[in-house]
Amino acid sequence: MRFLVVYAHPVKESFVSALHDCAVAALRSAGHEVDDCDLYAEGFQPVLLRAARIDYHNTDVNRGHASKEIERLLACNGLVLVYPTWWYGLPAMLKGYIDRVWLPGVAFELAGGRTKPLLTNIERFAVVTTYGSPWWLNKLIDDPSRSMLMRGIRLLFASKVRTLWLAQYGMDAADAATREKFLRKVERKLRAF
Amino acid sequence: MRFLVVYAHPVKESFVSALHDCAVAALRSAGHEVDDCDLYAEGFQPVLLRAARIDYHNTDVNRGHASKEIERLLACNGLVLVYPTWWYGLPAMLKGYIDRVWLPGVAFELAGGRTKPLLTNIERFAVVTTYGSPWWLNKLIDDPSRSMLMRGIRLLFASKVRTLWLAQYGMDAADAATREKFLRKVERKLRAF
Repeated sequence: MRFLVVYAHPVKESFVSALHDCAVAALRSAGHEVDDCDLYAEGFQPVLLRAARIDYHNTDVNRGHASKEIERLLACNGLVLVYPTWWYGLPAMLKGYIDRVWLPGVAFELAGGRTKPLLTNIERFAVVTTYGSPWWLNKLIDDPSRSMLMRGIRLLFASKVRTLWLAQYGMDAADAATREKFLRKVERKLRAF
Repeated sequence: MRFLVVYAHPVKESFVSALHDCAVAALRSAGHEVDDCDLYAEGFQPVLLRAARIDYHNTDVNRGHASKEIERLLACNGLVLVYPTWWYGLPAMLKGYIDRVWLPGVAFELAGGRTKPLLTNIERFAVVTTYGSPWWLNKLIDDPSRSMLMRGIRLLFASKVRTLWLAQYGMDAADAATREKFLRKVERKLRAF
């Protein structure tokens, strides 16, 4: 399969960067083609600007504001997001990637008040993320970014999309062994994905 | 009281811009002082960059990366966020404001695995937002941004903070009368806040 990996972290020496390297290597070693999109390294601009917002619902022209990224999104069969969870959600860099690239006519279609999914090319969807705070705290407030991605965003994909949620909670207190164990889990799960 | 209004929308002619004007006017007419922070107009840069991430947990230096915005946040007794909900969450512009400004030593303190709130100056917290999708769809997936703000973020404020959630769902199908009614509600609620 062809995977698009969308990764967002500003520090090369971070644990999330190691997870990113691990994810790309695992997919490649399983024989998949990988388009590795490092938003920070590519200098992606995540703010939806005035002109793009005005054109947002105009499917004749809206793609022009993010054409390269749209092409990459439509060319994949699998999507993997790798990022740190900050404030119960995606970093601005990754949230802005979705705001700007997942446009009407690309990711969904509004028809008669209903949302029709258009990213039916995506048959595999995985999330690899870390949380500073512990699992129970996120559970207590319904783990907003998990709900957003695994229940909201997934509705845009192929109806039988296979999903995978790989999250390391409690990073603020995690030791080296916990990190290593999570890396091995990400490698194992993505190789078999 | 002194209110900080943090607003994010790229289009001056939008309904959310009208909500912003209405919110600021309502607070002022009730006798409050308002610091009106228009993130797009001020050219706020929402991406947490490498140097700021490396300094993130170093409370001796981290404020230097967002000192002006931190000063404004600490000077208020009330906070009002005005934004469009995109993809079940905050626009990248507003998410990045929180990522970059609400730092350790400013918004919270990590002590022995526990998070201690530091924004106890904030005694009023209101959110004014719009959703393209209908109420039931957001409820179905637990309304992630409402959970994030009203259950997660509010823990950082004064323990007896008074909160207000003003959301217009179903904007994709809302008519002029619905919009006008919501504007009047925002005005009424914020005047009495």
